[in-house]
Amino acid sequence: MSFEVTILGCGAALPTSKRKPTSQFVNCNERFILIDCGEGTQNQLRKYGIKFQRINHILISHLHGDHFFGLIGLLSTMHLLGRDKGLTIYGPKELEQIIRIQLEVGGSKIGFKIKFVVLDNPEGGILFEDNLIEIRYFPMRHRIPTNGFRIQEKPKERSIIGEEMKANNISLKAIPFFRQGLDFTDENGQIHFADEYSIASKTPKSYGYCSDTSYFEPIIPHIKNVDVLYHEATFLEAMSKRAKETFHSTAKQAAEIAVKAGVKKLLLGHLSARYESNEAHEAEAKTIFENTEVVEDGMTYLVR
Amino acid sequence: MSFEVTILGCGAALPTSKRKPTSQFVNCNERFILIDCGEGTQNQLRKYGIKFQRINHILISHLHGDHFFGLIGLLSTMHLLGRDKGLTIYGPKELEQIIRIQLEVGGSKIGFKIKFVVLDNPEGGILFEDNLIEIRYFPMRHRIPTNGFRIQEKPKERSIIGEEMKANNISLKAIPFFRQGLDFTDENGQIHFADEYSIASKTPKSYGYCSDTSYFEPIIPHIKNVDVLYHEATFLEAMSKRAKETFHSTAKQAAEIAVKAGVKKLLLGHLSARYESNEAHEAEAKTIFENTEVVEDGMTYLVR
Repeated sequence: MSFEVTILGCGAALPTSKRKPTSQFVNCNERFILIDCGEGTQNQLRKYGIKFQRINHILISHLHGDHFFGLIGLLSTMHLLGRDKGLTIYGPKELEQIIRIQLEVGGSKIGFKIKFVVLDNPEGGILFEDNLIEIRYFPMRHRIPTNGFRIQEKPKERSIIGEEMKANNISLKAIPFFRQGLDFTDENGQIHFADEYSIASKTPKSYGYCSDTSYFEPIIPHIKNVDVLYHEATFLEAMSKRAKETFHSTAKQAAEIAVKAGVKKLLLGHLSARYESNEAHEAEAKTIFENTEVVEDGMTYLVR
Repeated sequence: MSFEVTILGCGAALPTSKRKPTSQFVNCNERFILIDCGEGTQNQLRKYGIKFQRINHILISHLHGDHFFGLIGLLSTMHLLGRDKGLTIYGPKELEQIIRIQLEVGGSKIGFKIKFVVLDNPEGGILFEDNLIEIRYFPMRHRIPTNGFRIQEKPKERSIIGEEMKANNISLKAIPFFRQGLDFTDENGQIHFADEYSIASKTPKSYGYCSDTSYFEPIIPHIKNVDVLYHEATFLEAMSKRAKETFHSTAKQAAEIAVKAGVKKLLLGHLSARYESNEAHEAEAKTIFENTEVVEDGMTYLVR
């Protein structure tokens, strides 16, 4: 099962030729999720060879243009390419109206069902789950209501060692118990140990997405122990005043959040257009948290 | 004085990596005009090195997404780059609401004045004029209300041959007459001929833009004798039925319009994504009108 994040755009409000507006494509156990959808996202998907009809869930963190202006174009293109499979869009409540009005004026009928799910619980919550994954949202602190996201695999059942069971003539009735890690007592009162007939699956992995937000400790429980955290770092610490005023973070602050949340790897993005290179951000964050990388458009990061 | 058209995008509803959604940048006598603004137009302006703060007029032909989804992003970026100079946007009446609602939800204040001018006169008319240029619009035939545009230089006054006037001791009072091509009779009743003291300026040039439309002869008077005509050619004649159904044109039809309007040069664009190369369109149109060229993103065409 794959779990990986492709950066489609990692720029801030003002895009540059190197850093397009925010969007990420996440494949979590073959569930295909788009997080945010800045202008030109459909173009980036095309450029990096991602089939966008696979996307079933689109999460929009907030309604600043660099996070959603590309949504209407993507939906139109999905329609023109003949999509008939439904799509769910999760985001602020005004989003549906904005999309519907633009389709109406063009006299366009979208040939697939779009379901809008409003994310406005101040406590956050689960926005999607199935047998394999779970996606949660949680409020951050920005100029307008903004959510972060946590995508995680569900704990998997243990794998059965079929040959071992057969060799020892263990009843098939034991399987559900072994899968849960429970020992099994047969009709003769004999105990068979789960450890001997099954092996633990890989630990479930998790990904946290926090853009845009100022330094905001209440997000920590929501991203606790994620394997990979993407946190915005619009500024360097030298501009911490500006970061505070605009409700953004510095590279150092992102690293502090990573340490306090006990994450394994930190990805930084959403760098202001004033920073041409990534080096200063990476260096600043690494003084606090070593396993840091500044992302680039087109790169794919494994969650492991 | 320059008069040139840069193609920022010449694709149809479904953009490709080679042909972006519709947008053109026109410099007519240092008046800077953007015609249509598909998704990613700001990116194309950047790519081709066009300073977009110079743009003072944005003309939107109609409200299909491939002609205006990039407008909101362009306005946001103009604001972020510190624009304070006003901007006028000409288009269908619903456009203002679509733009305003998107700015509102983001809590964004645009730091410059935007004036919306609704183009809904079924006769068309002049949408802008000053001492040097004039821009007209006219309805075409498409699935939703759609306008074409004609941008033209105003006739220029004749240039005065100063040395000749001085040598013959002609009164400065004669200048306004000579500029208009009128002869001047002095206080002694002597006639001085305009031809001898002034020369005619270059003939005013004109550019016509027709996208999107089905074959529609009523546009002909509006684009009569333009030096350069851009006309959509979404399909080839083999798909004329599909062209009719979707209110688009074929390359042959565009060429027929060019002939009937007596234009000097024909540019074809808005090719359906199904056509990878330009050759068939060019060949088809040339059987009717030789001076035809299929445009490409990034190319600049002189109006002369």
